[in-house]
Amino acid sequence: MRTMTIPAEYSTRTLTRRLPEEAFAWVDRHARALPTESISSNRAAGRVLAEAVEAPADIPGQPLAATDGYAVRAEDTQGAGDYSPLPLRLAAGGAPVAAGEAVAVSDGDPLPAGADAVLPLEHGEILGAALEISSGVARGQGVVRPGDEAYAGALLLPAGHHLRPQDLAHLAMAGVATIKVHRQPSVRVVLAGRFGHDTDGAMLGALVARDGGVLDRIETAADPTALAASLTPGGSEVILLVGGTGLGRDDHAAAALARAGELAFHGLALYPGDSAGLGRVGETLVVLLPGSPLPCLCAYDLVAARALRRLGRLPGPWPYPARSAVLTRKIASDLGRLELCRVRLVEGGVEPVAVAEGRLLATAVRADGFVVVPVHSEGYAAGTTATVYLYDPVDQRGAPNG
Amino acid sequence: MRTMTIPAEYSTRTLTRRLPEEAFAWVDRHARALPTESISSNRAAGRVLAEAVEAPADIPGQPLAATDGYAVRAEDTQGAGDYSPLPLRLAAGGAPVAAGEAVAVSDGDPLPAGADAVLPLEHGEILGAALEISSGVARGQGVVRPGDEAYAGALLLPAGHHLRPQDLAHLAMAGVATIKVHRQPSVRVVLAGRFGHDTDGAMLGALVARDGGVLDRIETAADPTALAASLTPGGSEVILLVGGTGLGRDDHAAAALARAGELAFHGLALYPGDSAGLGRVGETLVVLLPGSPLPCLCAYDLVAARALRRLGRLPGPWPYPARSAVLTRKIASDLGRLELCRVRLVEGGVEPVAVAEGRLLATAVRADGFVVVPVHSEGYAAGTTATVYLYDPVDQRGAPNG
Repeated sequence: MRTMTIPAEYSTRTLTRRLPEEAFAWVDRHARALPTESISSNRAAGRVLAEAVEAPADIPGQPLAATDGYAVRAEDTQGAGDYSPLPLRLAAGGAPVAAGEAVAVSDGDPLPAGADAVLPLEHGEILGAALEISSGVARGQGVVRPGDEAYAGALLLPAGHHLRPQDLAHLAMAGVATIKVHRQPSVRVVLAGRFGHDTDGAMLGALVARDGGVLDRIETAADPTALAASLTPGGSEVILLVGGTGLGRDDHAAAALARAGELAFHGLALYPGDSAGLGRVGETLVVLLPGSPLPCLCAYDLVAARALRRLGRLPGPWPYPARSAVLTRKIASDLGRLELCRVRLVEGGVEPVAVAEGRLLATAVRADGFVVVPVHSEGYAAGTTATVYLYDPVDQRGAPNG
Repeated sequence: MRTMTIPAEYSTRTLTRRLPEEAFAWVDRHARALPTESISSNRAAGRVLAEAVEAPADIPGQPLAATDGYAVRAEDTQGAGDYSPLPLRLAAGGAPVAAGEAVAVSDGDPLPAGADAVLPLEHGEILGAALEISSGVARGQGVVRPGDEAYAGALLLPAGHHLRPQDLAHLAMAGVATIKVHRQPSVRVVLAGRFGHDTDGAMLGALVARDGGVLDRIETAADPTALAASLTPGGSEVILLVGGTGLGRDDHAAAALARAGELAFHGLALYPGDSAGLGRVGETLVVLLPGSPLPCLCAYDLVAARALRRLGRLPGPWPYPARSAVLTRKIASDLGRLELCRVRLVEGGVEPVAVAEGRLLATAVRADGFVVVPVHSEGYAAGTTATVYLYDPVDQRGAPNG
C-alpha cells in the first residue's frame, strides 16, 4: 500500500515561494570562479579570457602593403594624373626602392625598403620595363604602419572577453599561441523523477552545452537511496537534480539535499517552475528542477543557466537575445510571482501562446520566445511594447540580405 | 627577378565589382539541398528538420495529474471550503477511485481510473485514514488530458524547423526516437595567400562551425600547382579558397578557379572584401576570400555564411541578431558599394569604430557589431536609427535579471 512518506527532516505541506532575485543573489554569491586553464588560442572560440592579453610587440612589426599595387617613393609620384602620366622604372623586388623606381607588391607584402607609399594597381600601366602612373600618392598611403593593429604593450583583449572568430585571428597576428581562459563547469544531471531520460535528459544536455557547461553524465536515481548516493560533493561543479521537487509522496529531492548539504531554497515565486530549489553539497552547486518538462525548462533558464554562465564567466544570465515588440493581445499574470509567458511572432508584434495550455511543453515548442512579467505586475495590456527574449538567436526574420 | 605574371587565361587589371545581390542570387541558385540523414532525436539540437514530424499517438496517451495532490471525483468535492471542510476516504493507489475516495498523486502520475480531477495538495489535510478537503475542484481540473500536448496525427514540428532544446523533449514525449535532418555541409579551407594558417585558418574554422558546417580540413597551397591540385570536385560541398584573390603578381586564385571549373564572380561592390569571388568545381561551391583577415571576415559573412547556411538549411543569411540603435556619430560610405561598418555600443547608441583604421582587423576586434550601408547610400547622419548586427548574440547588456 502506498502511504504518504514526507521525509521527517524536511517535512512541509506548502512551498515557501521566495523571490527569484533572492535566488539570483544566492547564485551570484556561490558561483565562484573556477580555476583557469591554458589553451591554444586558435581553438578558443566561445571561451572566456581569464587574463587580459597585451600585444607582445608592434602589430604588424614592419610596414606592409595595404593593397595590391606598386611600392614607390611618394615624392616621385607628385603631379601624375590621367592627362599627365609619369614614368617610373619597374624594378625587381629584394633591393631597396631607389628614386624613380617602383616595385610590384601584393596586399600584405612587407613594404620594400626605400618605399613610403603603395600606388594602387589600377593607377599604373606596365610598358616594357617602365611603369606609367596616372595618379600621385601621399606618404603612408596604401601602407599599414608598424603598430597600426596594435602597439607593443597595448591591450589586445580584456579579461572576461568572450572570444569571437575574429579575436582568434587577432591573437594569431600577435603571435599569442596560448591563452588563459576560464574553465568550463562540469555538470552532472540526476534524474530523480518519473520523467524519462530522453525527455528532460536530452533537453538538459543541449541546454548545458549552450551555456558553456561540459556534461559529465546523466544518471538516474530511482529511489531515495540512489538519490542520496548521487548527492556527493566533488567531480562536478554543478548537479542538476531533476524531478521529485514537489510535495507529493514521491518527492524526495529537497529532503535529500537538506540531508546531504545545504537546502538554501525550495520554492520560488516563479511560474512555471515554482517547485525549483537551490543549494549545495560541499562546493558543488545543486539546482532542483521540476521534472515536468516545461517547468524544468523555465527553472533551468532562470536559475541553472545563470549558475553555469557565472561559473564559466559567460556574459549574461541567459543566452536569449532581447527584442522589443508590441503585444497584439494582453498578457495576464498573477501578482506575486515572476511569469515567463511564451509568445510567438505574428504580424505586427507578438502574441501569447494560448494561456489555457499554460503548463504544457507544447507552448514552448510553438513559441518563438517569451516575455518576463515581474513579480509585482499583473501583466500587460494589448498594445504594450514589451521585451521579448527569443528562443532561437538565429531566427531573425527580415534580415536585409535575407 | 620578379616579374608581373598575371595568368593568361584570366588576365585583367581591374576588378569588375558586381552587386552583392547578384552574388546572393547565385548562391541561392547553386546551394542545393544536401541529402538528408537520420539521427537520434535526443542529439539533434541545432540541426534542421528535413521532414515534418507528426505525433504518432495522442500525447499524453492517458490522463495525467498536472499537479501534486489528490485524485478525486469532482462531484465529491462540491461544497468544500475553508469553513466547510469535507471528509474523503484516503485510498491506496492501484484500484479505481470510488465515490467518496481520494488517492495521493504526484505531478505527472497517470490519473487513477474513476478520478476526474486532482485537488492540489494544499487543499487537503490528512487525518488518519481520512482526507479533509477545504476546496472543491471542477471536472478536469489539475488534469492533463490525452492529446493536450498533441493529438495523434497533429503536426509536432514542421520541416525546416531549427531544433531547440525544448523540441528534443517534445520529440521524446512523442516517442519519436529518430528524425530526418538536413546533412551539414562539409567544408575545406585552402590557404593560398601569405596570411598564415593560424590567422585566417583559426578564424574560418570557428566561422564554419558557427554556420553549421563540418570542417573537413585546412590545407595550404603554396604555389599555383598546389592551388590547381586543391580545386578538385567531390569530397566537400564547399571550398573556401583564401588569399591570392587580388590582381597582384602572386594572385592566382581567380585564374585557378576559372581553369578548374566556373569563375562566376571575381570582384564584389563590397567594402571591405571587394576582391572576393564565387564559382564552382563540379557541384562543389568555391568561395574566393581575400587573405587579409578583415576583408576575409566580411566577405565570409556576406557570401560564405550564406552558402553554408543555405546548404544546411539553417535560418538566416548569417547568425547575427539585429538590433535597432541610434548612431551617435555619422557613418560615411562610398556610393556604389555595400559597406559593413563596424560599430561599438556606447551610451545612447552605437558609434563607428574609427574610420581611419578601415582595413584593420582591430576594428572588428574592438567592435560589438556592424551596420550595413547599402550600395546606393552614402551613409547615415548622426542621430539616425540604424539596424546593428551584433557579433556576439550572447552580449545583451541590460537583461532584466542581469
